[in-house]
Amino acid sequence: MAHITLPEGLPGIRGPLMFRPETAKPLNELVDVLLRGPHPLSPGERELIATYVSAQNDCRYCQTIHGAIAANHLGGDEALVLSVKQNPDRAAISAKLKALLAIAGKVQQSGKNVTSQDVERAREEGATDLEIHDTVLIAAVFCMCNRYVDGLATWAPDDPDFYRQRAAKVVADGYSVSTLTQTAAH
Amino acid sequence: MAHITLPEGLPGIRGPLMFRPETAKPLNELVDVLLRGPHPLSPGERELIATYVSAQNDCRYCQTIHGAIAANHLGGDEALVLSVKQNPDRAAISAKLKALLAIAGKVQQSGKNVTSQDVERAREEGATDLEIHDTVLIAAVFCMCNRYVDGLATWAPDDPDFYRQRAAKVVADGYSVSTLTQTAAH
Repeated sequence: MAHITLPEGLPGIRGPLMFRPETAKPLNELVDVLLRGPHPLSPGERELIATYVSAQNDCRYCQTIHGAIAANHLGGDEALVLSVKQNPDRAAISAKLKALLAIAGKVQQSGKNVTSQDVERAREEGATDLEIHDTVLIAAVFCMCNRYVDGLATWAPDDPDFYRQRAAKVVADGYSVSTLTQTAAH
Repeated sequence: MAHITLPEGLPGIRGPLMFRPETAKPLNELVDVLLRGPHPLSPGERELIATYVSAQNDCRYCQTIHGAIAANHLGGDEALVLSVKQNPDRAAISAKLKALLAIAGKVQQSGKNVTSQDVERAREEGATDLEIHDTVLIAAVFCMCNRYVDGLATWAPDDPDFYRQRAAKVVADGYSVSTLTQTAAH
């Protein structure tokens, strides 16, 4: 049971977002810009960063929904998402994304853990300042979202199909629209 | 030196905010709503939560600027801010705020660390669902900001007067306005 009384039927972050629309608005805008805005990294790659950080924080709702969204963007490749969660360096992704995920993993522990060597590795693989900035911010944003979701003890569905269906809706409509128009569980 | 090329002369989070205005806008709006919007907790109390979490994350820029903003809201009482950073349970603050700071401290470690007992203690001291929700979200937001600031290796001034002057400006104008209109160091 959640620590506070939240709107019924909405799992994970969606209960708190509906509870407090004043903070939901900028939160959704932030995630839409970061994960879906025009960018050298594809939406699938950015969702992999969000998924990986959420997995490192052991946040079941966030790692499952963002993993499903990543898979949707990546042609339904759920095995690839799983391999990134398990070990980015062995996953079938670009060397640049591996280097960015290494930075994201450091940010998950503490911003201070990111070293010049981590950043140099990313640059050698072709990462730009914008890609490094956004990797740090995506990782930081999911350290926030994971704590928001788990700090209020929200619930998370067990059925993988729930997340697949929800992912399709988020991919189609974006975070702001799909959150603000939702009243049922999907 | 910061890990990426940031606008010169802007310390802490302000360099990255200026570097990426698309994400700065919702970030500033979120912090303005959470820390300055109409609320049963005073702006000074909310800034103490931000300061305490930033101190627990050892983020020098964030704990110093939000500590200075908290002190400004609290009649200039810098000793009170320091005592909250050192040990909230011994500080001259309300029992309700002590209980909320205990929740914030748990969120700083992991959202999963918040227990029903932590929430029950806050309720017994009069905390509402909104106050508990916003405490969790403020703590989560500063876990993000601290990682953003330190993950990019931004610089922080040494002079306490720098923070006092900047705090007065933020208290007067808010986060969105004072960030977007700044080009010099203050």
